Amino acid sequence: MSSTSRPSFKTLLEFAHSLADTSGEAIRPYFRKPVTVANKAPPGAFDPVTAADEAAERAIARAVGRRWPDHGLIGEEFGNVREDARLRWVIDPIDGTRSFIMGSPLWGTLIGLLDGESPVLGLMNQPFTGERFWSGASEAFMRTGQGRAHSIKTRDCPRLANAIVSTTHTDLFAKGKEWDAFARLKSKARMTRYGGDCYAYCLLAAGFVDVVVETGLKPFDVVALIPIIERAGGRITTWKGEPAASGGRIVAAGDPRLHKILLSLLAR
Amino acid sequence: MSSTSRPSFKTLLEFAHSLADTSGEAIRPYFRKPVTVANKAPPGAFDPVTAADEAAERAIARAVGRRWPDHGLIGEEFGNVREDARLRWVIDPIDGTRSFIMGSPLWGTLIGLLDGESPVLGLMNQPFTGERFWSGASEAFMRTGQGRAHSIKTRDCPRLANAIVSTTHTDLFAKGKEWDAFARLKSKARMTRYGGDCYAYCLLAAGFVDVVVETGLKPFDVVALIPIIERAGGRITTWKGEPAASGGRIVAAGDPRLHKILLSLLAR
Repeated sequence: MSSTSRPSFKTLLEFAHSLADTSGEAIRPYFRKPVTVANKAPPGAFDPVTAADEAAERAIARAVGRRWPDHGLIGEEFGNVREDARLRWVIDPIDGTRSFIMGSPLWGTLIGLLDGESPVLGLMNQPFTGERFWSGASEAFMRTGQGRAHSIKTRDCPRLANAIVSTTHTDLFAKGKEWDAFARLKSKARMTRYGGDCYAYCLLAAGFVDVVVETGLKPFDVVALIPIIERAGGRITTWKGEPAASGGRIVAAGDPRLHKILLSLLAR
Repeated sequence: MSSTSRPSFKTLLEFAHSLADTSGEAIRPYFRKPVTVANKAPPGAFDPVTAADEAAERAIARAVGRRWPDHGLIGEEFGNVREDARLRWVIDPIDGTRSFIMGSPLWGTLIGLLDGESPVLGLMNQPFTGERFWSGASEAFMRTGQGRAHSIKTRDCPRLANAIVSTTHTDLFAKGKEWDAFARLKSKARMTRYGGDCYAYCLLAAGFVDVVVETGLKPFDVVALIPIIERAGGRITTWKGEPAASGGRIVAAGDPRLHKILLSLLAR
């Protein structure tokens, strides 16, 4: 790992906001327009990759390469660049592609930054609703449209019986252990809601959702969300309690007491 | 049924827009604020009724009573008024209460008008994103924020294998026949997505979703959506092909050819 010096947090955060502006402009023209839905999965499966996805990641890659030629880039569409860099931008141009192609606003652009293995900052941008969630140095924030940024906090919810639980799609849990673990959790929760992708994690950070539980996440699905959730007061790890930055089976809770209960429930 | 004369379509539609403005103002202050979640279901079940729901329906009831004292009102929160009137406004102030309480924008205010048993006009308003969908006299329209209204059309999708299918929550299908029918449909579809409520029907009208299938709907969940979908080119009926206005098990398709296939699939 090369040891470039690290720019100030403020400089990096401003740059992340500029990436959100740039990618939002690249994406917006494609939303709710007929798009070509390519298929990168084998026939039978359905894995949409839109022109918007590629346009946004290209714009981000260009901006990173110009401003920080020694930073790495981990993206969904074009693979990784300078993977051995100390500072690596971790990008999902459209997290929630399925929402995107059906015209729903429950998707967002994820922009995260790793320093070694630590997520330093994260940002989620929803260019259609104008919502943006991000991590400051010690707090988390959001703003809507031209409104002022305000700090966000997760809410107290120590008991699963009172919790709103979100997951992107129940089909993502493999039959057997994964499905059984989710079913156990669901049976004890106040309410479940499906279809959230990154949007659900941000609503957790803002204190409206208590639990997000998912499986099969890639690093670019989760790195940006970690600092937002943690600095809003929540906890996000793998189902085994390991750091979430590598993806996999992920559980987030707004209330750290509830997160502890979830880990024991999911481990069984 | 009393036979009041019917005002012009234009007058009625303008009034529906004014109800959307009024209810939107009543609701917006409550969105993403901590709200008191009352519980009108027996203990154990969870059926949130927010202050926003009640404030919006009260505002609508007041406006209808003032402008059209001889029109009826069928609402979710306060029951029915002048049920024997020829013209009856059918209102769901917040369709998608569960989305609302978790801070998701996938909810809307439904404003429909029945003339006898026929849905005359329908409007869905999403006051957070600023989106509005409605039926003109022969077309359907939408607008976003201060943008111009534009006509919307469902898209061609004659085959279920190419269809995006939406439903609000899989738990709403009763185990047995209902669940089996949904599972049959799902197994043949290109993709399913959950969590839409009225928003999904509007995306169908706008040509981004191909099928919405649900059960247990009340008239106020569906009356407003019927003219929007039909005038955009789609079909919406019960699973048996009966008129949808009474609610129950509902299936909507953007492509009438696909709707026919769905009916035979759901009837089996």
